[in-house]
Amino acid sequence: MPRPASPPLVLTTGEPAGVGPELALKAWLARATLPAFFVVGDPVLLADRAQRLGLDVPLVSCPPAQAAAQFPTALPVMPMGPRATAAPGQPDASSADAVRASLDAAVDLVQAGAAAALVTNPLAKSVMYAAGFPFPGHTEYLAARAAERASGAEPRAVMMIWSPLLAVVPATIHVPLRQVPDLVTVDLLLETGRIVATDMRRRFGLDAPRLAFAGLNPHAGESGTLGTEDEAVVHPAVVRLCAEGIDARGPLPADTLFHPEARADYDVVIGMYHDQVLIPAKTLAFHDGVNVTLGLPFIRTSPDHGTAFDIAGTGRANPASLMAALRLARRLADTQSLSREATPA
Amino acid sequence: MPRPASPPLVLTTGEPAGVGPELALKAWLARATLPAFFVVGDPVLLADRAQRLGLDVPLVSCPPAQAAAQFPTALPVMPMGPRATAAPGQPDASSADAVRASLDAAVDLVQAGAAAALVTNPLAKSVMYAAGFPFPGHTEYLAARAAERASGAEPRAVMMIWSPLLAVVPATIHVPLRQVPDLVTVDLLLETGRIVATDMRRRFGLDAPRLAFAGLNPHAGESGTLGTEDEAVVHPAVVRLCAEGIDARGPLPADTLFHPEARADYDVVIGMYHDQVLIPAKTLAFHDGVNVTLGLPFIRTSPDHGTAFDIAGTGRANPASLMAALRLARRLADTQSLSREATPA
Repeated sequence: MPRPASPPLVLTTGEPAGVGPELALKAWLARATLPAFFVVGDPVLLADRAQRLGLDVPLVSCPPAQAAAQFPTALPVMPMGPRATAAPGQPDASSADAVRASLDAAVDLVQAGAAAALVTNPLAKSVMYAAGFPFPGHTEYLAARAAERASGAEPRAVMMIWSPLLAVVPATIHVPLRQVPDLVTVDLLLETGRIVATDMRRRFGLDAPRLAFAGLNPHAGESGTLGTEDEAVVHPAVVRLCAEGIDARGPLPADTLFHPEARADYDVVIGMYHDQVLIPAKTLAFHDGVNVTLGLPFIRTSPDHGTAFDIAGTGRANPASLMAALRLARRLADTQSLSREATPA
Repeated sequence: MPRPASPPLVLTTGEPAGVGPELALKAWLARATLPAFFVVGDPVLLADRAQRLGLDVPLVSCPPAQAAAQFPTALPVMPMGPRATAAPGQPDASSADAVRASLDAAVDLVQAGAAAALVTNPLAKSVMYAAGFPFPGHTEYLAARAAERASGAEPRAVMMIWSPLLAVVPATIHVPLRQVPDLVTVDLLLETGRIVATDMRRRFGLDAPRLAFAGLNPHAGESGTLGTEDEAVVHPAVVRLCAEGIDARGPLPADTLFHPEARADYDVVIGMYHDQVLIPAKTLAFHDGVNVTLGLPFIRTSPDHGTAFDIAGTGRANPASLMAALRLARRLADTQSLSREATPA
């Protein structure tokens, strides 16, 4: 008996004044190289942007179940929420409701199984905050949405930046550097390591993912002479993870962790702070890095860049990162689906 | 009237139990691609190591003035100090005097003008400390040696890691990450920026070197929401440097500072801490990065790696970084010499 086709991917429009709508249109124009996806949001926004940029993208309004069949000939759009009226490069609080409606509906669809995975275009935090959005960003919003349905422990969302060359996870993210040494705790590293190991098994398809922990201090503290946290915090966390059967190693000196030979020895680096892992990730894959959220009951990816107001509406936005996000979302969904089938009921 | 030939480069043996002697021999075997250099130290060490590794390197004992003429047919060695007896991979405090003698003599020669520039092989800090060497490393030793002859302000040594792809300078280096935010001061950044700008003019031959300052915090603090130091410290330092006629910019978000397009916009990045700039430097150029000391009255380069005790004596040491250090030392010496000639007396 053939397997039923997996549902398509759902894509949000993101901030209408940013590059999201343009990226969605350009990705569809490259559809021969991409898995099927549909957009939820304001179809007039997409039609206007296509006309403005001279992009020949027919739109078709349809429900998710028909999106895959329509995808080869038109960009499927599921109309949702109010009009999104902000002009390119001119963010405008009046579009926040449209952005939120697109996001809410997309999460509903992926949680209901009508979409195989969620791919989000960038939103503008300032616009969302002004409109009362109570989350620091996408990631925290998604964790809260997942928690609505969770039984037991609340899901914790973990950010990974992925490219074919390098996958990294920062244990702390958008915090002042001064706070990092106190925020990096054994518990944080344990929780992060477990989520990363679990998701790399079930979604990336690695039987025994290899986790490399970067040291907090230069030279991973050089036996305590350059800081005590690597011996006091990172090392015990790695030992505990190993005892749980996770292939974890470290703390390793961060400066020698990212050249090609070093990268062959692990599947993911867990770094202690934002720049420690975002620097190598963006140095090696600036245009096609993907932001993946681990730890949630559904799959979510997004381009590894922001709204790019400075080039929105000019036609210069590069869809490489969104296209990579769509491809990775499909791969993760298919891997997870296979791994579910392989698991005895 | 032809210009008198510039003197050759002087190379120290470095820690005898490390890879330094092997690298010196291998570099000489690649001499067709390198500027002339001579070694100061124990010739028996070099002869023994060549025999052990099966490297066909004739040695010739000679003073610096004859080294360039001898270089095509034999590795010139200026015998100096006691025997260096430590076996490969087995550091031994009895060799510290030999290491120190090689270093002292090499600095004397470069300060006297008998060598055009100093290139140092790695030393073993633990060995040197045990023998009473009162400096944290090469760099501080060299600053102290330069200070012996300085009139006025004591020279401050500034470490740069250079490769054809990227030049970086960490404003703080071997300190715990926790201390970094308090160590980064306006004065430190001013002093560092001035030294970098001066040396990039007179030694790298750039008329108007472009200095990019990385932000301390993620996203360079995002207008103060992710830490205050970028606005309170880095920004004012950059403004002051600009007022002094130096092409400085920043603070710039560090994660988007090192991909190819970004690198085209500056000549050097001044980072706030070790890993922030050593990570991209070693990710992009692991084997042929060069450590350059700026701010001294003489030119000094070294390979961007340590003693590598784990592979010393096996013949597996890669001389790429030492060779790059020799080539860069020659280039800097020649550029400085031309810039002196061009300066009216």
